[in-house]
Amino acid sequence: MKRTLVKETLNHPAEKVKVSGWVNTRRDHGGIVFLDLRDRSGILQIVCSPNIVKDVQEECVIEVEGNVQERPIKMVNPELETGKIELKAETVKILSQAAVLPFDLKDLKLSLPKLLDYRPLVLRNPRIKAIFKIEEKVIESFRENLKNSGFTEFQAPTIVASATEGGAELFPVKYYQYDAYLAQSPQLYKQILVSVFERVFTVTRAYRAEPSITTRHLSEYISLDAEMGFIDSWEELMDTCETLILSIFSDIQKNCSEELKIFKAAIPKVSEKIPRLKMREAQEIIFQRTGRDNRKEIDLQPEDEKEICLWAREKHGSELIFVTHYPTPKRPFYTYADPQDENYSLSFDLLCRGLEIVTGSQRINKYEELIKNIKKFGLEPKPFQFYLQAFKYGMPPEGGFCMGGERLVKQILNLENIREASLFPRDMERIDQRLSLLQPRTRTSSVRGKPKKQIKQ
Amino acid sequence: MKRTLVKETLNHPAEKVKVSGWVNTRRDHGGIVFLDLRDRSGILQIVCSPNIVKDVQEECVIEVEGNVQERPIKMVNPELETGKIELKAETVKILSQAAVLPFDLKDLKLSLPKLLDYRPLVLRNPRIKAIFKIEEKVIESFRENLKNSGFTEFQAPTIVASATEGGAELFPVKYYQYDAYLAQSPQLYKQILVSVFERVFTVTRAYRAEPSITTRHLSEYISLDAEMGFIDSWEELMDTCETLILSIFSDIQKNCSEELKIFKAAIPKVSEKIPRLKMREAQEIIFQRTGRDNRKEIDLQPEDEKEICLWAREKHGSELIFVTHYPTPKRPFYTYADPQDENYSLSFDLLCRGLEIVTGSQRINKYEELIKNIKKFGLEPKPFQFYLQAFKYGMPPEGGFCMGGERLVKQILNLENIREASLFPRDMERIDQRLSLLQPRTRTSSVRGKPKKQIKQ
Repeated sequence: MKRTLVKETLNHPAEKVKVSGWVNTRRDHGGIVFLDLRDRSGILQIVCSPNIVKDVQEECVIEVEGNVQERPIKMVNPELETGKIELKAETVKILSQAAVLPFDLKDLKLSLPKLLDYRPLVLRNPRIKAIFKIEEKVIESFRENLKNSGFTEFQAPTIVASATEGGAELFPVKYYQYDAYLAQSPQLYKQILVSVFERVFTVTRAYRAEPSITTRHLSEYISLDAEMGFIDSWEELMDTCETLILSIFSDIQKNCSEELKIFKAAIPKVSEKIPRLKMREAQEIIFQRTGRDNRKEIDLQPEDEKEICLWAREKHGSELIFVTHYPTPKRPFYTYADPQDENYSLSFDLLCRGLEIVTGSQRINKYEELIKNIKKFGLEPKPFQFYLQAFKYGMPPEGGFCMGGERLVKQILNLENIREASLFPRDMERIDQRLSLLQPRTRTSSVRGKPKKQIKQ
Repeated sequence: MKRTLVKETLNHPAEKVKVSGWVNTRRDHGGIVFLDLRDRSGILQIVCSPNIVKDVQEECVIEVEGNVQERPIKMVNPELETGKIELKAETVKILSQAAVLPFDLKDLKLSLPKLLDYRPLVLRNPRIKAIFKIEEKVIESFRENLKNSGFTEFQAPTIVASATEGGAELFPVKYYQYDAYLAQSPQLYKQILVSVFERVFTVTRAYRAEPSITTRHLSEYISLDAEMGFIDSWEELMDTCETLILSIFSDIQKNCSEELKIFKAAIPKVSEKIPRLKMREAQEIIFQRTGRDNRKEIDLQPEDEKEICLWAREKHGSELIFVTHYPTPKRPFYTYADPQDENYSLSFDLLCRGLEIVTGSQRINKYEELIKNIKKFGLEPKPFQFYLQAFKYGMPPEGGFCMGGERLVKQILNLENIREASLFPRDMERIDQRLSLLQPRTRTSSVRGKPKKQIKQ
């Protein structure tokens, strides 16, 4: 007999079917046992006599044959899609036994570190699982929207030969007899490919050896990168980014209402248009509002990002805001300086509910200027020769942006910690299991010195 | 004035438009200059007077305003989509100058190493570019087909804490003060997620520190991984794989006819059903056909894979063949042994035109058996504790397979070397640039010893 998905049993009233899945709950009522069976399509109530489910406990994987029947009216469960029916079991077969659960999987009351220790098990909880359905849809929407705008998807390499955007925060790789690194971003590759496909994007992994514990950094994260040539102005980049992010939100609204409900979350609200402010203007507003004088700082601080988002919501009814014109030395070497004031760059961050979720800029597209800027940043042109070919032989005016996949999901669902938005988060203390438990500190490491661990907000 | 894509000029007969792109060719005919302008949509002939294109050479990025006009009948080019029209240029603006090309970009006659040295430039060649349009479509088709079959897409981590599938061929990463590795595959994660979503897939990067130069290995490659629970039998895995691969081929046939034409390639032919043979049967057939006696070998050799593919084509008219039942010790610890003969496993490879493109198997889904097998393979259960949670608390009968993205493209287009199918191939000698030119050998490396370099076919 072929398996029927739980949800499809609705189409088989009074018929015999075979279903299989995990035992979500077991309730014993004297001479009768109720099981809630969970599969990828939903949950179905199974009614059986105790003698056929002797060893069946929660999270057991079972296969049940029986008859679909209507529930007595007072037993109808309006919360459940299959709430009007149940399966009267004839046979129950255990496909895989489960150990006694170490905690209540349906009512999780663990600290985040514990939740991550038990990640494979905890992912079965509907609330946690919902996070990754949202993640899947965010990425799907990112792809679909860009493909519809003439972008080509490419696969970015992640092992790189040199520290392209400055040497800090890189993970070294022993690459045969050479030294290599994990890519901080697919930046140079997406630029190269603008000279081939004009418009490109990638969904890839990026790596930062962030030597601190924060609620917004991961050592390995999902980078959603886009880059486009033949722009008329750098504002076109923000326009593209704005259209894209609003489309992603609206797709999530449309396709993930169930998941949003679990988190009592609404997609970020935007007034007609996302407000745009220069960084210096933002700092001035923050100073006026709070008396906190960061007007000479060369970047926004985390508390500034929160404050300017509050301002945007109050003043413009928008939970998103573009901050532009970051100081040129604060941005990477390939960033285009503002011709009107070269101390500032044609760059932008998109902040959402207090956190940066996108960063972008126009790039230098002329070969000689790019080489000049590489040197100005104290870097050697030699390791960039490969990349520079794309510019030497004609590169249109171009720019792009990247979104942090986990940050996007975190901000949509108002999660407290970015680790919650990563299936298998990596940070300085954890690769699945806690590293301190798994590995002794190595000799190599003590030679390299132990990075300072700081607890940041 | 807004930019019009080259292809769209067809919709603007006798109108003034602005186009921009790269100068594909320049032909001077006395008082008149013909440029072929290339953008992402195609190629358009520009007619101009020499004085407005003085510094315009091949691969220059230019912006042209002018009038769309019909070509004189004898000038019509049937090879070109826009072959009946041309643009009479009024103004030509250089957006980005190009250096003199180091070789003829339209008629490449370079060795593969040279082609890779010049990768960013060479990717502009239509033949090379076509390879990555095919790659994009293969991946898109993989995703769409699995999504339509109830699979959930996930993002796999690539930094792992231990050498999960045996210690060979791993790249070590200095991970803060700990040792970590680049994942050889997302295997353990996709299995974990079967206990959450039942059916999952990922498009990810995988890494093999392959200490040899072959035409079919890359150090970093695209892994297309799928895994599914609640299988009735391991043949169901092959059925799913067969349906998927044939759908991918048929999507490529449908969407990439232009690209296939450039390579004079046809998608692999299959008789009604892909033939299935046990490895021992394949070895026997090879022995009968060639006299080469590998019947006691525990794996197929590259020349065996070629020979059995020849047989499948001659005997079954199929360019694909499943080889099954590889010896249990030859497969990873999680592979299900055949209950009828435990020396062989419920595993399969799919060979295409002489090369393995997919590998898969049923997995051990019972907790105690899995632990027993980990020990039997000489491994410690401790580093697997995280993964083992998924099995401890109920895992359905399951299995899956993975496809090598670049191998698939290589075999579809009959490319000689897998490097041709990778945008930015990494091998023991190259990360974009040749490592020997870029880096001196490091002290750390000489301590570790230089891996033996072997030239394999």
